[in-house]
Amino acid sequence: MRIANLVVVGVGLLGGSIALAARSRGVAARVLGVDRDPDSLRQARERGMLDEGGTDLVAAAGEADVLVFCTPVDLIAAQVMAAAPACRPGALLTDVGSTKAAIVHAIEGRLPPGVAFVGGHPLAGSEKNGPGYATAHLLEGRQVIVTRTPHTDPAALDRAAAFWEALGAWVRVMDPDAHDRALALTSHLPHVVAAALASTLPSHLHDLTATGFRDTTRLAAGDPALWGGILSSNQANVLAALDRFGDQLRRFHDALAAGDRAALECLLAQGKDVKEAVAHFCREHPPATS
Amino acid sequence: MRIANLVVVGVGLLGGSIALAARSRGVAARVLGVDRDPDSLRQARERGMLDEGGTDLVAAAGEADVLVFCTPVDLIAAQVMAAAPACRPGALLTDVGSTKAAIVHAIEGRLPPGVAFVGGHPLAGSEKNGPGYATAHLLEGRQVIVTRTPHTDPAALDRAAAFWEALGAWVRVMDPDAHDRALALTSHLPHVVAAALASTLPSHLHDLTATGFRDTTRLAAGDPALWGGILSSNQANVLAALDRFGDQLRRFHDALAAGDRAALECLLAQGKDVKEAVAHFCREHPPATS
Repeated sequence: MRIANLVVVGVGLLGGSIALAARSRGVAARVLGVDRDPDSLRQARERGMLDEGGTDLVAAAGEADVLVFCTPVDLIAAQVMAAAPACRPGALLTDVGSTKAAIVHAIEGRLPPGVAFVGGHPLAGSEKNGPGYATAHLLEGRQVIVTRTPHTDPAALDRAAAFWEALGAWVRVMDPDAHDRALALTSHLPHVVAAALASTLPSHLHDLTATGFRDTTRLAAGDPALWGGILSSNQANVLAALDRFGDQLRRFHDALAAGDRAALECLLAQGKDVKEAVAHFCREHPPATS
Repeated sequence: MRIANLVVVGVGLLGGSIALAARSRGVAARVLGVDRDPDSLRQARERGMLDEGGTDLVAAAGEADVLVFCTPVDLIAAQVMAAAPACRPGALLTDVGSTKAAIVHAIEGRLPPGVAFVGGHPLAGSEKNGPGYATAHLLEGRQVIVTRTPHTDPAALDRAAAFWEALGAWVRVMDPDAHDRALALTSHLPHVVAAALASTLPSHLHDLTATGFRDTTRLAAGDPALWGGILSSNQANVLAALDRFGDQLRRFHDALAAGDRAALECLLAQGKDVKEAVAHFCREHPPATS
Protein backbone atom coordinates (compact mmCIF):
# COMPACT_ATOMS: atom_id res chain seq x y z
CA MET A 1 0.00 0.00 0.00
CA ARG A 2 1.26 3.45 -0.95
CA ILE A 3 -0.59 6.59 0.17
CA ALA A 4 0.13 10.00 -1.36
CA ASN A 5 -1.18 12.06 1.57
CA LEU A 6 -1.77 10.55 5.02
CA VAL A 7 -3.42 12.80 7.60
CA VAL A 8 -2.99 11.82 11.24
CA VAL A 9 -5.50 13.56 13.52
CA GLY A 10 -4.14 13.65 17.06
CA VAL A 11 -0.37 13.15 17.27
CA GLY A 12 -0.12 11.46 20.66
CA LEU A 13 1.29 8.02 21.44
CA LEU A 14 -0.74 6.20 18.79
CA GLY A 15 -0.98 8.95 16.16
CA GLY A 16 2.72 9.68 16.50
CA SER A 17 3.58 5.98 16.22
CA ILE A 18 1.41 5.63 13.10
CA ALA A 19 3.10 8.68 11.55
CA LEU A 20 6.57 7.31 12.34
CA ALA A 21 5.71 3.85 11.00
CA ALA A 22 4.14 5.28 7.83
CA ARG A 23 7.30 7.29 7.12
CA SER A 24 9.85 4.64 8.05
CA ARG A 25 8.01 1.95 6.06
CA GLY A 26 7.39 4.19 3.06
CA VAL A 27 3.63 3.71 3.40
CA ALA A 28 2.91 7.42 2.88
CA ALA A 29 4.67 9.87 0.56
CA ARG A 30 3.58 12.76 2.79
CA VAL A 31 2.35 12.75 6.40
CA LEU A 32 0.29 15.67 7.70
CA GLY A 33 -0.47 15.99 11.39
CA VAL A 34 -3.46 17.75 12.93
CA ASP A 35 -3.61 18.47 16.63
CA ARG A 36 -5.22 21.18 18.70
CA ASP A 37 -2.22 21.18 21.04
CA PRO A 38 0.68 23.21 19.57
CA ASP A 39 3.11 21.48 21.96
CA SER A 40 2.26 18.04 20.58
CA LEU A 41 2.69 19.34 17.03
CA ARG A 42 6.04 20.86 17.89
CA GLN A 43 7.24 17.64 19.52
CA ALA A 44 5.98 15.59 16.56
CA ARG A 45 7.79 17.86 14.10
CA GLU A 46 10.97 17.80 16.17
CA ARG A 47 10.92 14.01 16.20
CA GLY A 48 10.56 13.95 12.40
CA MET A 49 7.08 12.41 12.38
CA LEU A 50 5.42 14.91 10.07
CA ASP A 51 5.97 16.66 6.76
CA GLU A 52 3.49 19.28 7.88
CA GLY A 53 1.47 19.98 10.99
CA GLY A 54 -1.40 22.28 11.84
CA THR A 55 -4.54 22.78 13.85
CA ASP A 56 -7.02 23.02 10.94
CA LEU A 57 -8.71 19.64 10.48
CA VAL A 58 -10.91 20.70 7.56
CA ALA A 59 -7.99 22.15 5.57
CA ALA A 60 -5.93 18.97 6.09
CA ALA A 61 -8.91 16.76 5.20
CA GLY A 62 -9.07 18.40 1.77
CA GLU A 63 -5.61 17.04 0.98
CA ALA A 64 -6.05 13.56 2.47
CA ASP A 65 -6.11 10.20 0.73
CA VAL A 66 -6.25 8.43 4.10
CA LEU A 67 -7.18 10.09 7.40
CA VAL A 68 -6.64 8.28 10.69
CA PHE A 69 -8.30 9.70 13.81
CA CYS A 70 -6.22 9.15 16.94
CA THR A 71 -8.19 11.38 19.30
CA PRO A 72 -10.25 10.52 22.41
CA VAL A 73 -13.23 8.25 21.65
CA ASP A 74 -15.84 10.85 22.45
CA LEU A 75 -14.40 13.26 19.86
CA ILE A 76 -13.85 10.89 16.94
CA ALA A 77 -17.36 10.69 15.40
CA ALA A 78 -17.82 14.48 15.44
CA GLN A 79 -14.37 15.02 13.95
CA VAL A 80 -15.04 12.48 11.20
CA MET A 81 -18.34 14.20 10.39
CA ALA A 82 -16.58 17.58 10.34
CA ALA A 83 -13.76 16.38 8.10
CA ALA A 84 -15.76 14.23 5.66
CA PRO A 85 -17.44 17.04 3.65
CA ALA A 86 -13.99 18.49 2.90
CA CYS A 87 -12.59 15.14 1.71
CA ARG A 88 -12.05 14.31 -1.94
CA PRO A 89 -13.97 11.35 -3.38
CA GLY A 90 -12.05 8.15 -2.71
CA ALA A 91 -10.76 9.30 0.68
CA LEU A 92 -10.65 6.59 3.36
CA LEU A 93 -11.22 7.53 6.99
CA THR A 94 -10.32 5.22 9.87
CA ASP A 95 -9.59 5.58 13.59
CA VAL A 96 -7.97 4.00 16.63
CA GLY A 97 -10.81 4.38 19.14
CA SER A 98 -10.93 1.78 21.93
CA THR A 99 -14.70 1.42 21.52
CA LYS A 100 -16.31 0.99 18.13
CA ALA A 101 -20.12 0.75 18.22
CA ALA A 102 -20.91 4.35 19.18
CA ILE A 103 -18.42 5.73 16.65
CA VAL A 104 -19.42 3.48 13.75
CA HIS A 105 -23.15 3.90 14.33
CA ALA A 106 -22.83 7.72 14.59
CA ILE A 107 -21.06 7.86 11.22
CA GLU A 108 -22.61 5.09 9.17
CA GLY A 109 -24.95 6.25 6.40
CA ARG A 110 -24.11 9.90 6.96
CA LEU A 111 -20.97 10.37 4.85
CA PRO A 112 -20.80 12.17 1.48
CA PRO A 113 -20.71 9.89 -1.58
CA GLY A 114 -17.25 8.51 -2.30
CA VAL A 115 -15.99 9.01 1.24
CA ALA A 116 -15.72 5.87 3.38
CA PHE A 117 -15.16 5.25 7.08
CA VAL A 118 -13.95 1.92 8.47
CA GLY A 119 -13.46 1.71 12.22
CA GLY A 120 -10.12 0.51 13.57
CA HIS A 121 -8.73 -0.40 16.99
CA PRO A 122 -5.09 -1.36 17.42
CA LEU A 123 -4.61 -3.61 20.48
CA ALA A 124 -1.49 -1.67 21.29
CA GLY A 125 -0.75 1.25 23.47
CA SER A 126 0.52 2.00 26.87
CA GLU A 127 -0.43 3.82 30.02
CA LYS A 128 1.86 6.54 28.68
CA ASN A 129 0.55 9.41 26.57
CA GLY A 130 1.93 11.96 24.14
CA PRO A 131 4.14 11.94 21.05
CA GLY A 132 7.22 11.65 23.26
CA TYR A 133 6.43 7.94 23.76
CA ALA A 134 5.64 7.25 20.09
CA THR A 135 7.71 4.63 18.28
CA ALA A 136 7.70 3.32 14.71
CA HIS A 137 7.46 -0.21 16.14
CA LEU A 138 4.34 0.19 18.30
CA LEU A 139 2.05 -1.64 15.87
CA GLU A 140 4.47 -4.34 14.76
CA GLY A 141 3.00 -7.77 15.36
CA ARG A 142 -0.06 -6.29 17.08
CA GLN A 143 -3.67 -6.96 16.24
CA VAL A 144 -5.79 -4.23 14.75
CA ILE A 145 -9.53 -4.85 14.87
CA VAL A 146 -11.20 -3.46 11.76
CA THR A 147 -14.99 -3.14 11.85
CA ARG A 148 -17.49 -4.50 9.35
CA THR A 149 -21.24 -3.98 9.39
CA PRO A 150 -23.82 -4.82 6.71
CA HIS A 151 -23.28 -1.26 5.43
CA THR A 152 -19.48 -1.40 5.15
CA ASP A 153 -18.09 -0.95 1.64
CA PRO A 154 -15.98 -4.08 0.96
CA ALA A 155 -13.38 -2.14 -1.04
CA ALA A 156 -12.96 0.37 1.80
CA LEU A 157 -12.64 -2.51 4.28
CA ASP A 158 -9.87 -4.02 2.15
CA ARG A 159 -8.06 -0.69 1.95
CA ALA A 160 -8.31 -0.17 5.70
CA ALA A 161 -6.96 -3.67 6.35
CA ALA A 162 -4.11 -3.06 3.87
CA PHE A 163 -3.30 0.25 5.61
CA TRP A 164 -2.93 -1.37 9.05
CA GLU A 165 -1.02 -4.34 7.65
CA ALA A 166 1.37 -1.98 5.87
CA LEU A 167 2.19 -0.52 9.32
CA GLY A 168 3.21 -3.98 10.55
CA ALA A 169 0.00 -5.03 12.31
CA TRP A 170 -2.20 -8.01 11.61
CA VAL A 171 -5.87 -7.43 11.05
CA ARG A 172 -8.99 -9.08 12.41
CA VAL A 173 -12.41 -8.07 11.12
CA MET A 174 -15.20 -7.80 13.70
CA ASP A 175 -18.67 -6.43 14.10
CA PRO A 176 -18.43 -3.22 16.20
CA ASP A 177 -20.91 -4.45 18.83
CA ALA A 178 -19.07 -7.78 19.19
CA HIS A 179 -15.82 -5.80 19.50
CA ASP A 180 -17.20 -3.71 22.34
CA ARG A 181 -18.59 -6.72 24.22
CA ALA A 182 -15.21 -8.46 23.92
CA LEU A 183 -13.05 -5.47 24.81
CA ALA A 184 -15.20 -4.76 27.86
CA LEU A 185 -13.79 -8.02 29.27
CA THR A 186 -10.27 -8.03 27.82
CA SER A 187 -9.38 -4.34 28.24
CA HIS A 188 -11.94 -2.09 29.94
CA LEU A 189 -12.58 -4.37 32.93
CA PRO A 190 -8.83 -4.81 33.63
CA HIS A 191 -8.52 -1.02 33.56
CA VAL A 192 -11.28 -0.50 36.13
CA VAL A 193 -9.92 -3.35 38.27
CA ALA A 194 -6.40 -1.88 38.21
CA ALA A 195 -7.71 1.59 39.13
CA ALA A 196 -9.96 0.24 41.90
CA LEU A 197 -7.12 -1.89 43.28
CA ALA A 198 -4.69 1.05 43.28
CA SER A 199 -7.15 3.29 45.09
CA THR A 200 -7.83 0.57 47.68
CA LEU A 201 -4.26 0.96 48.97
CA PRO A 202 -3.98 3.31 51.96
CA SER A 203 -1.09 5.76 51.69
CA HIS A 204 0.80 4.37 54.70
CA LEU A 205 1.25 1.10 52.78
CA HIS A 206 2.77 2.52 49.59
CA ASP A 207 6.20 1.36 50.62
CA LEU A 208 5.12 -2.22 51.29
CA THR A 209 4.29 -2.96 47.67
CA ALA A 210 6.40 -5.15 45.42
CA THR A 211 6.32 -6.07 41.73
CA GLY A 212 3.03 -7.95 42.10
CA PHE A 213 1.09 -4.87 43.17
CA ARG A 214 2.87 -2.73 40.59
CA ASP A 215 2.09 -5.00 37.64
CA THR A 216 -1.50 -5.62 38.70
CA THR A 217 -2.10 -1.85 38.89
CA ARG A 218 -0.01 -0.75 35.88
CA LEU A 219 -3.08 0.29 33.90
CA ALA A 220 -4.19 2.64 36.69
CA ALA A 221 -1.55 5.11 35.45
CA GLY A 222 -3.66 5.73 32.33
CA ASP A 223 -5.16 9.14 31.63
CA PRO A 224 -8.43 9.52 33.63
CA ALA A 225 -10.15 11.71 31.02
CA LEU A 226 -9.27 9.36 28.17
CA TRP A 227 -10.44 6.32 30.10
CA GLY A 228 -13.53 8.07 31.44
CA GLY A 229 -14.51 8.48 27.79
CA ILE A 230 -13.72 4.89 26.83
CA LEU A 231 -15.65 3.39 29.75
CA SER A 232 -18.61 5.75 29.28
CA SER A 233 -18.85 4.93 25.58
CA ASN A 234 -19.10 1.22 26.43
CA GLN A 235 -21.25 1.61 29.54
CA ALA A 236 -23.60 -1.40 29.28
CA ASN A 237 -20.85 -3.86 28.35
CA VAL A 238 -18.47 -2.62 31.06
CA LEU A 239 -21.23 -2.83 33.68
CA ALA A 240 -21.94 -6.42 32.57
CA ALA A 241 -18.22 -7.21 32.75
CA LEU A 242 -18.03 -5.70 36.25
CA ASP A 243 -20.97 -7.87 37.34
CA ARG A 244 -19.33 -10.96 35.90
CA PHE A 245 -16.06 -10.11 37.68
CA GLY A 246 -17.95 -9.33 40.91
CA ASP A 247 -19.54 -12.79 40.79
CA GLN A 248 -16.14 -14.40 40.36
CA LEU A 249 -14.65 -12.32 43.18
CA ARG A 250 -17.53 -13.37 45.43
CA ARG A 251 -16.69 -17.03 44.79
CA PHE A 252 -13.16 -16.38 46.11
CA HIS A 253 -14.59 -14.47 49.08
CA ASP A 254 -17.06 -17.24 49.93
CA ALA A 255 -14.51 -20.05 49.64
CA LEU A 256 -12.10 -18.15 51.88
CA ALA A 257 -14.81 -17.18 54.38
CA ALA A 258 -15.97 -20.80 54.57
CA GLY A 259 -12.41 -22.02 55.08
CA ASP A 260 -12.97 -24.25 52.04
CA ARG A 261 -9.37 -24.71 50.98
CA ALA A 262 -10.21 -27.12 48.15
CA ALA A 263 -12.70 -24.66 46.62
CA LEU A 264 -10.21 -21.82 46.99
CA GLU A 265 -7.45 -23.75 45.24
CA CYS A 266 -9.87 -24.81 42.53
CA LEU A 267 -10.70 -21.13 41.86
CA LEU A 268 -7.00 -20.22 41.83
CA ALA A 269 -6.34 -23.09 39.44
CA GLN A 270 -9.06 -21.82 37.08
CA GLY A 271 -7.35 -18.44 36.97
CA LYS A 272 -3.99 -20.10 36.33
CA ASP A 273 -5.46 -22.16 33.49
CA VAL A 274 -6.77 -19.05 31.74
CA LYS A 275 -3.46 -17.28 32.32
CA GLU A 276 -1.60 -20.17 30.72
CA ALA A 277 -3.98 -20.36 27.77
CA VAL A 278 -3.51 -16.62 27.16
CA ALA A 279 0.27 -16.95 27.55
CA HIS A 280 0.24 -19.80 25.03
CA PHE A 281 -1.60 -17.58 22.56
CA CYS A 282 0.91 -14.78 23.22
CA ARG A 283 3.88 -17.01 22.49
CA GLU A 284 2.35 -17.75 19.11
CA HIS A 285 1.64 -14.06 18.46
CA PRO A 286 4.25 -12.15 20.44
CA PRO A 287 3.27 -8.52 20.97
CA ALA A 288 5.76 -5.71 20.57
CA THR A 289 6.73 -4.38 23.97
CA SER A 290 5.27 -1.02 24.83
CA MET B 1 28.02 -11.63 58.69
CA ARG B 2 29.74 -14.96 58.21
CA ILE B 3 27.89 -18.23 58.84
CA ALA B 4 29.72 -21.55 59.16
CA ASN B 5 26.74 -23.77 58.26
CA LEU B 6 23.63 -22.40 56.56
CA VAL B 7 20.73 -24.81 56.12
CA VAL B 8 18.13 -23.92 53.51
CA VAL B 9 14.89 -25.85 53.94
CA GLY B 10 13.01 -25.96 50.63
CA VAL B 11 15.24 -25.27 47.62
CA GLY B 12 12.67 -23.64 45.32
CA LEU B 13 12.78 -20.16 43.82
CA LEU B 14 13.42 -18.38 47.13
CA GLY B 15 15.45 -21.07 48.91
CA GLY B 16 17.58 -21.59 45.82
CA SER B 17 18.12 -17.85 45.44
CA ILE B 18 19.14 -17.54 49.10
CA ALA B 19 21.58 -20.44 48.70
CA LEU B 20 23.08 -18.88 45.56
CA ALA B 21 23.37 -15.44 47.17
CA ALA B 22 24.90 -16.88 50.36
CA ARG B 23 27.55 -18.68 48.32
CA SER B 24 28.31 -15.92 45.84
CA ARG B 25 28.53 -13.28 48.60
CA GLY B 26 30.58 -15.47 50.93
CA VAL B 27 27.90 -15.21 53.61
CA ALA B 28 28.06 -18.94 54.40
CA ALA B 29 31.09 -21.22 54.45
CA ARG B 30 28.86 -24.24 53.79
CA VAL B 31 25.31 -24.40 52.46
CA LEU B 32 23.15 -27.46 53.13
CA GLY B 33 19.84 -27.93 51.35
CA VAL B 34 16.88 -29.91 52.65
CA ASP B 35 13.97 -30.74 50.39
CA ARG B 36 11.48 -33.58 50.24
CA ASP B 37 11.60 -33.47 46.44
CA PRO B 38 14.69 -35.27 45.09
CA ASP B 39 14.28 -33.48 41.73
CA SER B 40 14.61 -30.05 43.37
CA LEU B 41 17.69 -31.24 45.27
CA ARG B 42 19.24 -32.59 42.08
CA GLN B 43 18.55 -29.34 40.19
CA ALA B 44 19.92 -27.30 43.10
CA ARG B 45 23.09 -29.37 43.22
CA GLU B 46 23.52 -29.20 39.44
CA ARG B 47 23.25 -25.42 39.58
CA GLY B 48 25.93 -25.27 42.26
CA MET B 49 23.67 -23.95 45.00
CA LEU B 50 24.55 -26.48 47.68
CA ASP B 51 27.54 -28.10 49.32
CA GLU B 52 25.24 -30.90 50.44
CA GLY B 53 21.62 -31.78 50.01
CA GLY B 54 19.27 -34.27 51.62
CA THR B 55 15.77 -35.00 52.77
CA ASP B 56 16.44 -35.30 56.53
CA LEU B 57 15.55 -32.02 58.21
CA VAL B 58 16.47 -33.12 61.74
CA ALA B 59 19.93 -34.33 60.70
CA ALA B 60 20.66 -31.08 58.87
CA ALA B 61 19.32 -29.01 61.80
CA GLY B 62 21.97 -30.57 64.06
CA GLU B 63 24.68 -28.97 61.92
CA ALA B 64 23.07 -25.56 61.40
CA ASP B 65 24.18 -22.16 62.64
CA VAL B 66 21.39 -20.52 60.65
CA LEU B 67 18.34 -22.31 59.22
CA VAL B 68 16.04 -20.58 56.78
CA PHE B 69 12.68 -22.17 56.03
CA CYS B 70 11.53 -21.60 52.44
CA THR B 71 8.61 -24.00 52.41
CA PRO B 72 4.85 -23.34 52.04
CA VAL B 73 3.41 -21.21 54.87
CA ASP B 74 1.28 -23.99 56.32
CA LEU B 75 4.33 -26.23 56.80
CA ILE B 76 6.81 -23.76 58.30
CA ALA B 77 5.75 -23.72 61.97
CA ALA B 78 5.63 -27.53 62.22
CA GLN B 79 9.01 -27.84 60.48
CA VAL B 80 10.55 -25.26 62.82
CA MET B 81 9.19 -27.14 65.84
CA ALA B 82 10.53 -30.44 64.42
CA ALA B 83 13.98 -28.99 63.71
CA ALA B 84 14.48 -26.90 66.85
CA PRO B 85 15.13 -29.73 69.37
CA ALA B 86 17.99 -30.97 67.13
CA CYS B 87 19.60 -27.53 66.92
CA ARG B 88 22.71 -26.55 68.83
CA PRO B 89 22.43 -23.66 71.30
CA GLY B 90 22.95 -20.38 69.46
CA ALA B 91 21.21 -21.55 66.30
CA LEU B 92 19.07 -18.93 64.57
CA LEU B 93 15.95 -19.98 62.68
CA THR B 94 14.18 -17.72 60.21
CA ASP B 95 11.79 -18.14 57.29
CA VAL B 96 10.38 -16.55 54.13
CA GLY B 97 6.67 -17.16 54.72
CA SER B 98 4.29 -14.65 53.12
CA THR B 99 2.19 -14.49 56.29
CA LYS B 100 3.75 -14.08 59.69
CA ALA B 101 1.25 -14.02 62.57
CA ALA B 102 0.21 -17.70 62.48
CA ILE B 103 3.83 -18.86 62.15
CA VAL B 104 5.29 -16.58 64.82
CA HIS B 105 2.50 -17.25 67.32
CA ALA B 106 2.73 -21.03 66.81
CA ILE B 107 6.46 -21.00 67.60
CA GLU B 108 6.91 -18.26 70.18
CA GLY B 109 7.62 -19.48 73.71
CA ARG B 110 7.92 -23.10 72.58
CA LEU B 111 11.58 -23.32 71.51
CA PRO B 112 14.39 -25.00 73.47
CA PRO B 113 16.68 -22.63 75.40
CA GLY B 114 19.36 -21.04 73.23
CA VAL B 115 17.46 -21.59 70.00
CA ALA B 116 15.79 -18.47 68.50
CA PHE B 117 13.26 -17.93 65.73
CA VAL B 118 12.76 -14.57 63.99
CA GLY B 119 10.15 -14.44 61.22
CA GLY B 120 11.17 -13.10 57.83
CA HIS B 121 9.37 -12.21 54.61
CA PRO B 122 11.30 -11.06 51.54
CA LEU B 123 9.11 -8.87 49.30
CA ALA B 124 10.58 -10.65 46.33
CA GLY B 125 9.54 -13.57 44.27
CA SER B 126 7.76 -14.36 41.12
CA GLU B 127 4.83 -16.30 39.80
CA LYS B 128 7.48 -18.86 38.81
CA ASN B 129 8.41 -21.74 41.09
CA GLY B 130 11.30 -24.13 41.52
CA PRO B 131 15.09 -23.89 41.78
CA GLY B 132 15.34 -23.49 38.00
CA TYR B 133 14.24 -19.86 38.39
CA ALA B 134 16.52 -19.10 41.34
CA THR B 135 19.08 -16.33 40.98
CA ALA B 136 21.75 -14.91 43.29
CA HIS B 137 20.29 -11.45 42.66
CA LEU B 138 16.66 -12.07 43.68
CA LEU B 139 16.98 -10.33 47.05
CA GLU B 140 19.22 -7.46 45.96
CA GLY B 141 17.62 -4.13 46.80
CA ARG B 142 14.44 -5.84 48.03
CA GLN B 143 12.78 -5.35 51.36
CA VAL B 144 12.73 -8.17 53.87
CA ILE B 145 10.24 -7.76 56.70
CA VAL B 146 11.64 -9.16 59.92
CA THR B 147 9.20 -9.70 62.79
CA ARG B 148 9.47 -8.41 66.35
CA THR B 149 7.09 -9.14 69.19
CA PRO B 150 7.47 -8.38 72.92
CA HIS B 151 9.00 -11.87 73.22
CA THR B 152 11.62 -11.50 70.47
CA ASP B 153 15.23 -11.78 71.62
CA PRO B 154 16.93 -8.51 70.51
CA ALA B 155 20.23 -10.24 69.71
CA ALA B 156 18.44 -12.79 67.51
CA LEU B 157 16.57 -9.97 65.76
CA ASP B 158 19.89 -8.25 65.02
CA ARG B 159 21.38 -11.47 63.65
CA ALA B 160 18.34 -12.09 61.45
CA ALA B 161 18.51 -8.54 60.09
CA ALA B 162 22.26 -8.92 59.46
CA PHE B 163 21.62 -12.20 57.63
CA TRP B 164 19.11 -10.69 55.21
CA GLU B 165 21.23 -7.57 54.71
CA ALA B 166 24.25 -9.74 53.93
CA LEU B 167 22.20 -11.24 51.07
CA GLY B 168 21.69 -7.76 49.59
CA ALA B 169 18.22 -6.96 50.98
CA TRP B 170 17.22 -4.08 53.20
CA VAL B 171 15.36 -4.86 56.37
CA ARG B 172 12.24 -3.44 57.97
CA VAL B 173 11.12 -4.61 61.38
CA MET B 174 7.38 -5.10 61.89
CA ASP B 175 4.94 -6.69 64.27
CA PRO B 176 3.65 -9.92 62.67
CA ASP B 177 -0.01 -8.90 62.92
CA ALA B 178 0.68 -5.49 61.35
CA HIS B 179 2.62 -7.29 58.62
CA ASP B 180 -0.32 -9.54 57.82
CA ARG B 181 -2.82 -6.66 57.75
CA ALA B 182 -0.55 -4.73 55.38
CA LEU B 183 0.31 -7.60 53.08
CA ALA B 184 -3.36 -8.53 52.77
CA LEU B 185 -3.73 -5.24 50.87
CA THR B 186 -0.37 -4.99 49.10
CA SER B 187 0.07 -8.63 48.04
CA HIS B 188 -2.74 -11.07 48.86
CA LEU B 189 -5.57 -8.90 47.51
CA PRO B 190 -3.75 -8.28 44.20
CA HIS B 191 -3.29 -12.03 43.89
CA VAL B 192 -6.99 -12.77 44.37
CA VAL B 193 -7.93 -9.92 42.03
CA ALA B 194 -5.56 -11.19 39.32
CA ALA B 195 -6.91 -14.74 39.65
CA ALA B 196 -10.55 -13.59 39.63
CA LEU B 197 -9.91 -11.34 36.63
CA ALA B 198 -8.21 -14.13 34.70
CA SER B 199 -11.03 -16.57 35.37
CA THR B 200 -13.61 -13.94 34.29
CA LEU B 201 -12.31 -14.17 30.73
CA PRO B 202 -14.30 -16.58 28.53
CA SER B 203 -12.11 -18.85 26.42
CA HIS B 204 -13.31 -17.45 23.10
CA LEU B 205 -11.73 -14.10 24.05
CA HIS B 206 -8.22 -15.34 24.90
CA ASP B 207 -6.91 -14.02 21.61
CA LEU B 208 -8.31 -10.52 22.11
CA THR B 209 -6.09 -9.75 25.08
CA ALA B 210 -3.14 -7.38 24.95
CA THR B 211 -0.40 -6.38 27.38
CA GLY B 212 -2.90 -4.69 29.73
CA PHE B 213 -4.78 -7.90 30.46
CA ARG B 214 -1.54 -9.87 30.68
CA ASP B 215 0.09 -7.57 33.23
CA THR B 216 -3.03 -7.19 35.32
CA THR B 217 -3.34 -10.99 35.57
CA ARG B 218 0.37 -11.88 35.84
CA LEU B 219 0.00 -13.04 39.45
CA ALA B 220 -2.73 -15.52 38.46
CA ALA B 221 0.04 -17.81 37.16
CA GLY B 222 1.14 -18.45 40.75
CA ASP B 223 0.90 -21.93 42.27
CA PRO B 224 -2.69 -22.56 43.51
CA ALA B 225 -1.66 -24.76 46.44
CA LEU B 226 0.98 -22.30 47.65
CA TRP B 227 -1.44 -19.37 47.40
CA GLY B 228 -4.33 -21.34 48.87
CA GLY B 229 -2.11 -21.70 51.95
CA ILE B 230 -1.08 -18.05 52.05
CA LEU B 231 -4.63 -16.74 51.71
CA SER B 232 -6.02 -19.24 54.23
CA SER B 233 -3.37 -18.34 56.79
CA ASN B 234 -4.40 -14.68 56.56
CA GLN B 235 -8.14 -15.27 56.22
CA ALA B 236 -9.59 -12.38 58.25
CA ASN B 237 -7.27 -9.76 56.79
CA VAL B 238 -7.77 -10.93 53.20
CA LEU B 239 -11.56 -10.94 53.67
CA ALA B 240 -11.36 -7.37 55.02
CA ALA B 241 -9.18 -6.37 52.05
CA LEU B 242 -11.67 -7.96 49.63
CA ASP B 243 -14.49 -6.00 51.27
CA ARG B 244 -12.52 -2.78 50.98
CA PHE B 245 -11.77 -3.49 47.33
CA GLY B 246 -15.40 -4.45 46.70
CA ASP B 247 -16.51 -1.07 48.09
CA GLN B 248 -14.11 0.72 45.77
CA LEU B 249 -15.21 -1.34 42.78
CA ARG B 250 -18.85 -0.50 43.60
CA ARG B 251 -18.01 3.20 43.43
CA PHE B 252 -16.76 2.70 39.87
CA HIS B 253 -19.84 0.66 39.03
CA ASP B 254 -22.21 3.26 40.46
CA ALA B 255 -20.51 6.20 38.75
CA LEU B 256 -20.60 4.38 35.42
CA ALA B 257 -24.21 3.20 35.88
CA ALA B 258 -25.30 6.76 36.75
CA GLY B 259 -23.50 8.15 33.71
CA ASP B 260 -21.64 10.42 36.15
CA ARG B 261 -18.53 11.09 34.06
CA ALA B 262 -17.04 13.54 36.58
CA ALA B 263 -17.32 11.00 39.40
CA LEU B 264 -15.85 8.28 37.18
CA GLU B 265 -12.86 10.40 36.21
CA CYS B 266 -12.36 11.39 39.84
CA LEU B 267 -12.18 7.71 40.81
CA LEU B 268 -9.76 7.00 37.96
CA ALA B 269 -7.64 9.97 39.04
CA GLN B 270 -7.50 8.62 42.61
CA GLY B 271 -6.13 5.33 41.27
CA LYS B 272 -3.60 7.19 39.13
CA ASP B 273 -2.47 9.24 42.16
CA VAL B 274 -1.78 6.11 44.18
CA LYS B 275 -0.02 4.52 41.21
CA GLU B 276 2.23 7.55 40.88
CA ALA B 277 2.98 7.67 44.60
CA VAL B 278 3.95 3.99 44.53
CA ALA B 279 6.04 4.51 41.36
CA HIS B 280 7.80 7.42 43.05
CA PHE B 281 8.65 5.18 45.98
CA CYS B 282 9.88 2.48 43.57
CA ARG B 283 12.21 4.90 41.81
CA GLU B 284 13.82 5.61 45.15
CA HIS B 285 14.06 1.92 46.00
CA PRO B 286 14.29 0.11 42.67
CA PRO B 287 13.43 -3.58 42.99
CA ALA B 288 15.47 -6.24 41.27
CA THR B 289 13.53 -7.60 38.32
CA SER B 290 12.17 -11.08 38.78
